[in-house]
Amino acid sequence: MKSKPFELSISQWFNTKGAITLEQLKGRVVVVGAFQMLCPACVAHSIQQLKKMQTIFKNTQVAVIGLHTVFEHHTAMQPHALEAFIHEYRLSFPIGVDRHIPDEAIPQTMQALNLRGTPSTVIFDTAGEICFHEFGHVDDLVLGLTIGQLLSTANGSARA
Amino acid sequence: MKSKPFELSISQWFNTKGAITLEQLKGRVVVVGAFQMLCPACVAHSIQQLKKMQTIFKNTQVAVIGLHTVFEHHTAMQPHALEAFIHEYRLSFPIGVDRHIPDEAIPQTMQALNLRGTPSTVIFDTAGEICFHEFGHVDDLVLGLTIGQLLSTANGSARA
Amino acid sequence: MKSKPFELSISQWFNTKGAITLEQLKGRVVVVGAFQMLCPACVAHSIQQLKKMQTIFKNTQVAVIGLHTVFEHHTAMQPHALEAFIHEYRLSFPIGVDRHIPDEAIPQTMQALNLRGTPSTVIFDTAGEICFHEFGHVDDLVLGLTIGQLLSTANGSARA
Amino acid sequence: MKSKPFELSISQWFNTKGAITLEQLKGRVVVVGAFQMLCPACVAHSIQQLKKMQTIFKNTQVAVIGLHTVFEHHTAMQPHALEAFIHEYRLSFPIGVDRHIPDEAIPQTMQALNLRGTPSTVIFDTAGEICFHEFGHVDDLVLGLTIGQLLSTANGSARA
Repeated sequence: MKSKPFELSISQWFNTKGAITLEQLKGRVVVVGAFQMLCPACVAHSIQQLKKMQTIFKNTQVAVIGLHTVFEHHTAMQPHALEAFIHEYRLSFPIGVDRHIPDEAIPQTMQALNLRGTPSTVIFDTAGEICFHEFGHVDDLVLGLTIGQLLSTANGSARA
Repeated sequence: MKSKPFELSISQWFNTKGAITLEQLKGRVVVVGAFQMLCPACVAHSIQQLKKMQTIFKNTQVAVIGLHTVFEHHTAMQPHALEAFIHEYRLSFPIGVDRHIPDEAIPQTMQALNLRGTPSTVIFDTAGEICFHEFGHVDDLVLGLTIGQLLSTANGSARA
Repeated sequence: MKSKPFELSISQWFNTKGAITLEQLKGRVVVVGAFQMLCPACVAHSIQQLKKMQTIFKNTQVAVIGLHTVFEHHTAMQPHALEAFIHEYRLSFPIGVDRHIPDEAIPQTMQALNLRGTPSTVIFDTAGEICFHEFGHVDDLVLGLTIGQLLSTANGSARA
Repeated sequence: MKSKPFELSISQWFNTKGAITLEQLKGRVVVVGAFQMLCPACVAHSIQQLKKMQTIFKNTQVAVIGLHTVFEHHTAMQPHALEAFIHEYRLSFPIGVDRHIPDEAIPQTMQALNLRGTPSTVIFDTAGEICFHEFGHVDDLVLGLTIGQLLSTANGSARA
């Protein structure tokens, strides 16, 4: 039942020294928040939720990563514009730019994850398997519940 | 390390047929939300959070209970007034009136739980032990995380 | 076209020395906010709006008055309970209890103003005439606009 | 006491046929909302306030105009990016791009109005004179009050 582990396809990283891979993060729960800087629901809700998760989960078993999945208005959301956005919104969690192939609207990671749009939340368990995949805003209570269950399961397995 | 299991001391129940005891709820995670109907932070935040939990956790391993812990303005928050409040705020989760002894400001369960005020949140694990005890508003993400961990641990134990 | 000036019918005042009459307030714009302490929309929105108006209009040509128009759950919203509510919600604008006649559900001022329910907002111009009468939450922008127009008109007349 | 009437310096308009001048708008109250598309407070509050004003004041004596005053991150906030922003945020009130001279950080209208930053609100009375000039978010109630007073004064003068 083992599939080849999923990996992000990122053309540029912000807020991190060197590239981040899911492979490196094995053993931790990884929350990937897919957003676009000009998506109103992302700006109003998801960005704030990612910031809050970063604060709550700092230096724990949960890693929070932003994924800039531009699938429209490409010229308006280039990495230099994202950099200004990150500065203005005071974002300090790692953010990867989803790799964009010329002539393809949908960037690579978004295609591979089969995301319907932004915002989307994808959670990987400690083994690197996708165990949560949702389009639209996820309620904080549901998100916390999901992550809490993954953490406990992981700890239980570790102890077993 | 086993202590005598904690039990609620309730003089009257709303939204439930017959009394509820923690003893009956063993095997489920129990979230007790202590509030007062004239406490602004309770009305603005905690009551809404209890409603949301009831919706999310309906018919699952999590039981949500309101506890009306009146420790001030006693004459203004009698059960008949609480009944009007429950009706106006459309609350349908079980709510117990914390037992009040004449001449004692603090009601019985509030004393036993050593609550500092309202709102307060107390969570019992599936074995009936207190494992979360907080005064003031608890962030939804933190609350979900706590409950998720308890559920998983319980399931892990059950499987073991 | 002069009608007999409208007057409030109040059984008890809070946050004021002595009774307030609209007659006394002639020359000022008077905003009357009708509410019930157990009405969720009143607590969430109207009470906050009255507080904000009090802050903005303090010692100006605008008087802000709360009117406790109890038309249901009478035993739960007696003046002693309102007093606790006023204390807990830190209300310091004048609040009058709409006079209640036994066996009549609707109190006197509410009847006279023909209010449909709570919250309701009624504004009297500087001549004591009703010039705004609305059931439900009124947007701050609309409310400010209405008051601003009344103030200017009054000043214009005064100067004329 | 008459000064030369102030005029906007705009390099490009959105949501309008042909250029808009304050000269054309004489006789109406004009609310100019200065913003930047990557300014968090503008996006969270001011843009929503301008939308609400447009809805409330549509086809009345009040004209609502957005002014894109870019004074930082110039390459990220070019007109083509603003166009995407306008589309995503469903803005339909007229928006002018404040004219930017190469090598000057501050655009022309912003300089002339002596704005401190974004968001800023400037209101012109029916004679085209500036009568409100504020940096930061303006409360809806205060904004409505200001506009209401200007409208009444204008009507009073017209009648005189």
